[in-house]
Amino acid sequence: MPTEKQTITLLISCPDQPGIVAEVSRFIFAHQGNILESDQHSTNQEECTFFMRIRFGEEGFTLSPTELHSKFQPIADRFQMQWRVSYSRERKRAGILVSKYDHCLVDLLWRWKMGELAMEIPFIISNHTRLEGLAQMYGIPFYYFPVQRESRIADEQRIVDFIGDTVDFLILARYMQILEPFFVNTYPQRIINIHHSFLPAFIGASPYAQAFTRGVKLIGATAHYVTNQLDEGPIIAQDVIHCDHRDNVQDLIRKGRDVERRVLAEAVRLHTTDRILVYENKTIVF
Amino acid sequence: MPTEKQTITLLISCPDQPGIVAEVSRFIFAHQGNILESDQHSTNQEECTFFMRIRFGEEGFTLSPTELHSKFQPIADRFQMQWRVSYSRERKRAGILVSKYDHCLVDLLWRWKMGELAMEIPFIISNHTRLEGLAQMYGIPFYYFPVQRESRIADEQRIVDFIGDTVDFLILARYMQILEPFFVNTYPQRIINIHHSFLPAFIGASPYAQAFTRGVKLIGATAHYVTNQLDEGPIIAQDVIHCDHRDNVQDLIRKGRDVERRVLAEAVRLHTTDRILVYENKTIVF
Amino acid sequence: MPTEKQTITLLISCPDQPGIVAEVSRFIFAHQGNILESDQHSTNQEECTFFMRIRFGEEGFTLSPTELHSKFQPIADRFQMQWRVSYSRERKRAGILVSKYDHCLVDLLWRWKMGELAMEIPFIISNHTRLEGLAQMYGIPFYYFPVQRESRIADEQRIVDFIGDTVDFLILARYMQILEPFFVNTYPQRIINIHHSFLPAFIGASPYAQAFTRGVKLIGATAHYVTNQLDEGPIIAQDVIHCDHRDNVQDLIRKGRDVERRVLAEAVRLHTTDRILVYENKTIVF
Amino acid sequence: MPTEKQTITLLISCPDQPGIVAEVSRFIFAHQGNILESDQHSTNQEECTFFMRIRFGEEGFTLSPTELHSKFQPIADRFQMQWRVSYSRERKRAGILVSKYDHCLVDLLWRWKMGELAMEIPFIISNHTRLEGLAQMYGIPFYYFPVQRESRIADEQRIVDFIGDTVDFLILARYMQILEPFFVNTYPQRIINIHHSFLPAFIGASPYAQAFTRGVKLIGATAHYVTNQLDEGPIIAQDVIHCDHRDNVQDLIRKGRDVERRVLAEAVRLHTTDRILVYENKTIVF
Repeated sequence: MPTEKQTITLLISCPDQPGIVAEVSRFIFAHQGNILESDQHSTNQEECTFFMRIRFGEEGFTLSPTELHSKFQPIADRFQMQWRVSYSRERKRAGILVSKYDHCLVDLLWRWKMGELAMEIPFIISNHTRLEGLAQMYGIPFYYFPVQRESRIADEQRIVDFIGDTVDFLILARYMQILEPFFVNTYPQRIINIHHSFLPAFIGASPYAQAFTRGVKLIGATAHYVTNQLDEGPIIAQDVIHCDHRDNVQDLIRKGRDVERRVLAEAVRLHTTDRILVYENKTIVF
Repeated sequence: MPTEKQTITLLISCPDQPGIVAEVSRFIFAHQGNILESDQHSTNQEECTFFMRIRFGEEGFTLSPTELHSKFQPIADRFQMQWRVSYSRERKRAGILVSKYDHCLVDLLWRWKMGELAMEIPFIISNHTRLEGLAQMYGIPFYYFPVQRESRIADEQRIVDFIGDTVDFLILARYMQILEPFFVNTYPQRIINIHHSFLPAFIGASPYAQAFTRGVKLIGATAHYVTNQLDEGPIIAQDVIHCDHRDNVQDLIRKGRDVERRVLAEAVRLHTTDRILVYENKTIVF
Repeated sequence: MPTEKQTITLLISCPDQPGIVAEVSRFIFAHQGNILESDQHSTNQEECTFFMRIRFGEEGFTLSPTELHSKFQPIADRFQMQWRVSYSRERKRAGILVSKYDHCLVDLLWRWKMGELAMEIPFIISNHTRLEGLAQMYGIPFYYFPVQRESRIADEQRIVDFIGDTVDFLILARYMQILEPFFVNTYPQRIINIHHSFLPAFIGASPYAQAFTRGVKLIGATAHYVTNQLDEGPIIAQDVIHCDHRDNVQDLIRKGRDVERRVLAEAVRLHTTDRILVYENKTIVF
Repeated sequence: MPTEKQTITLLISCPDQPGIVAEVSRFIFAHQGNILESDQHSTNQEECTFFMRIRFGEEGFTLSPTELHSKFQPIADRFQMQWRVSYSRERKRAGILVSKYDHCLVDLLWRWKMGELAMEIPFIISNHTRLEGLAQMYGIPFYYFPVQRESRIADEQRIVDFIGDTVDFLILARYMQILEPFFVNTYPQRIINIHHSFLPAFIGASPYAQAFTRGVKLIGATAHYVTNQLDEGPIIAQDVIHCDHRDNVQDLIRKGRDVERRVLAEAVRLHTTDRILVYENKTIVF
């Protein structure tokens, strides 16, 4: 398999108006960038917002990161853009938080080792010690941070202090704790959670038990960015699997694991490849 | 295509205990019935309930319907069974209620004409006149029953009076009215509704608009028996389709139509072939 | 539902090189076009080919169709583009050919009436008279063109003579005849067929019977452009449905109808919205 | 999670005739067995064959394995049954063969450790040493058996000699070798292979490259019993995933891994729970 060429990705949002695509693509071309992918979307409401993702080859592009910033900013100002740039050679750093269940972590680590997920994993944090061996197997530092009901805030503060800005985003790979607002606010739109239901159905605890009681004919999983409204953050990816009356709660849990790990991995893949823009508690996934 | 052989179907539920399958199958065999399908299910709770569907050929079976009843009742009594029997040559009579949207009705009528749905359709009732032509095309009597907010109970009473017991079950093929309790109670577990969301998400009005606002990545449809808790009756069938940020509410409606009609048709097929048993607000679908 | 705004779509393919997106988007912007959608793709082979679909609003665009042609051609020449343009207000004309099975036709006509398929249907041609009533119901001229084994070429010639260039493309909605090469060559990449298997499995006649014999656990349907290699033209859309040992050939046919009609409708929708480019017997579907 | 109760499963096939279900269920009941599941199927051809799977609790059942055999054989003789019995407390022994790719093995071992697959794994055999560490991690003996083109028969003979009858079945978890007829014949209907296409499409080598060349819009995987016709044995399970023009061969391989491991695990689960009967190169999966 040949080495992937390095690329640069621009993510842009701004009020819609004619000329944005022309100007951005002209800018890239003027500095010898070859556009590889270009996606755009406009909301169809009164105040139309425009979103764009454009990916171009780094090889041959004549601007350094600093130059790119200083030269693109005037364009951004003209169109009132919010924008960010990322370089594929700077792999994102993903901190993983887990509790006791291993299926999402096993899957993420295996995909990561296979090269499916372009990221670094500086650490795995858990409120249990059970998965330490798994982390070691992949050579990833594992840190045990117990969280107690009565000292939750202090416990979480220690985690945030530890993490600081050593990561680009966090993955809650079935981390069975509700994060405090100060924690969530430290990493806005940068914490990906997997919830084991097709949200907004079955918010909160024990969604498989809820699903069993309701007698649904499909169960699902939802990956979303964490906000301070429980299970109500912007949805990144969802999928379902069929079930029937033969499935008891244990069966739903078993079937659900397959969906959870697949949906979480997909969300992480989308995030690491800069394909997600958040807009009004929704995501645009290019 | 050869003529389908006529069959008899027994649906049974009772407290679980050994010997039920043996006794029921012995009974059928003793009277020359050849068992074609047999399904069973036991709930795995403290008080275990047993459910069974057994279908056997009518040809050669030596008992008349009256004899079947009188001779099977002692077995039913012994095992405290609730049971019912149906004959495939007595096609179920399905009354259909619609409003203005035609996609579910178009699909049901086409499938019915194709022979996919073994039932009679004695009438189509609507609170609008728009779909009268469609009914006529298939030669089905169409009755216009307007329902006004201020006279809802009287209006619905006229419908119930009209229907009486001329049907075995009712299909709400996007009938955009909430039925009064007396109406629902007249046809318990005999009214099939299609709700245009993957319940329990998006109960109530405008589920596609709700789905758009929430930013879900899949939309769905749910066929269920109507109870007096809005959209909370026993679920018969569900399915979903993927969507993304490019889909506005109109797109969700368009995509959703495909799922709605498929899920409703499946639920009707299951009902007409006596494959559904209701248990604690859930369904067992054999 | 508000009236859709009219749009113009450019479809382009050319050898890949930097600057294409910049130049095309500059051109559109220079003439006051507001870009609504833009998709691109490059083949990753030695001789890289670039494909682009760009859709922009017609309102405000300052070039007439003739002007657009003459002013864009120099750009096209410079980049060695193959290109075509289409206007949404000029709905494509789709001639439909059917035999006896009605499920695809019923579905296409219903979707068309609902506004899901932006096209005109100047005629329906059939080698049987069975579906004439259906055509009449939708007010579409129906023509009976019998095709005999011994006079096939002459029979098909009469069809081609009749159609001439009164259509933009043809839909074989389960037209159970293999078209002669001269027929296919008259409408290259403009005849959409639905084959009732997941190609390349089960090429040729009776795919459901073949599927039953092989004992597959899923059946499918494939919409493709017709070429002179039977069932080997560029694939536009495919889908499958699960089946099991309980399904006999009739069941497979019944289940398959649902997939066939959905896949064919999707392919037609993609074609009418200029989303398909053909490349080396494959399709790029934007 | 409570301990699963131990069960006994009977798998039966015989010429169809009335009374089979009655007799088998009577037999089980007469010896105090409580039937938990019962499935049956009849082929609808001239010479009708009947298939049955019946599972009942071992607790309370009054016959020892030897007694069950001797007392059931007269019934089997009367109905000309082929039959076998299995006890859930005797977990099946599954030998696994792999080459270099680890995704199927990783998934099988993880599911096995989670309790999803009720079997023993006495060994893992490979023609490469790459996956030895993975085997050790799960404490499973790993044996390296190189297979050379020029000594294939002798090499495979050594494997068969080694395995002997220490297993109940074999799993080819992407074992990239075509087995010699004598090997296959040693374990008839007891070798499960995963083929990385939706068979019968893309038989043989490099199915993803074949799929890319053909331009299909979905790729799949097929688990089947190995016979001496390459990739033509009885299909146990199949599934697909959508793909499009953006997917190159590497992407198809990546997407396909997800389907392969899921389909193989499902087939193994079905085999270990005695849910599969083979009939005329097809499977009946209860």
